[in-house]
Amino acid sequence: MDPRVSLITLGVTDLGRAREFYERLGWVGQEVEETVFVQAGSMALILWSREKLAADGGITDEGTDGFGGVALAHNVRSSEEVDEIISTARAAGAIVTKPAGVTFYGGYSGYFTDPDGHAWEIAHNPGFPLAPDGSITIPDFGGR
Amino acid sequence: MDPRVSLITLGVTDLGRAREFYERLGWVGQEVEETVFVQAGSMALILWSREKLAADGGITDEGTDGFGGVALAHNVRSSEEVDEIISTARAAGAIVTKPAGVTFYGGYSGYFTDPDGHAWEIAHNPGFPLAPDGSITIPDFGGR
Repeated sequence: MDPRVSLITLGVTDLGRAREFYERLGWVGQEVEETVFVQAGSMALILWSREKLAADGGITDEGTDGFGGVALAHNVRSSEEVDEIISTARAAGAIVTKPAGVTFYGGYSGYFTDPDGHAWEIAHNPGFPLAPDGSITIPDFGGR
Repeated sequence: MDPRVSLITLGVTDLGRAREFYERLGWVGQEVEETVFVQAGSMALILWSREKLAADGGITDEGTDGFGGVALAHNVRSSEEVDEIISTARAAGAIVTKPAGVTFYGGYSGYFTDPDGHAWEIAHNPGFPLAPDGSITIPDFGGR
């Protein structure tokens, strides 16, 4: 199994609301059969009914819309961009769970949750090089 | 906000167990300060304490380790590869929540959950072109 992720599907309770939220962030998708597909670099973000997603995966869903144990991060090139995106997200209806500030690793980041509780970190991390095409490279930490 | 995801952090309760699981799938990472970083194409998968992740994001965690409302998909080039990966995951301790089979969209897929309940779909979807470098392209569905 090669190390790559092709799709991230976020389960949502109101597809129109979720789509509008991401479009206000600038993420434009196509809707087909009550599913929204957004090309995101070399992969795709999908918005789909949480109920249908669980059923499709044969997964029991206790239906909480709290923290799902997953956070997505969007890295940017400056602290100013972090502030701008968090401000845009707040205006679009996100809950800012951690205001942007200096991080323990020497970067600058903040977190918000989308209308379905999915967590996003918006980060400027000078230690993780970001290529012109938006791809990120984990440096060699000398760890194992 | 450009449409891209830089990092996916999976909250885990036992880092060693999670790391071993992903390594058995072939995903090799570096561990630094109790965090495992795996380069995954143009982005990275991170394994980190679920408790620390929630605290870092200022998020209240009710601590369920059930379905988090998110599914990651790994698309491959054949049905046989789907079967092989699901078999490897099962042997590594995954719970296969949906055995591989033909999907409603004309592909072939199955789902499993990792030791922390994070859901993965392994799919062969002939409708979503997969480039030699593993990047996926959402076709123009003619939707809006």
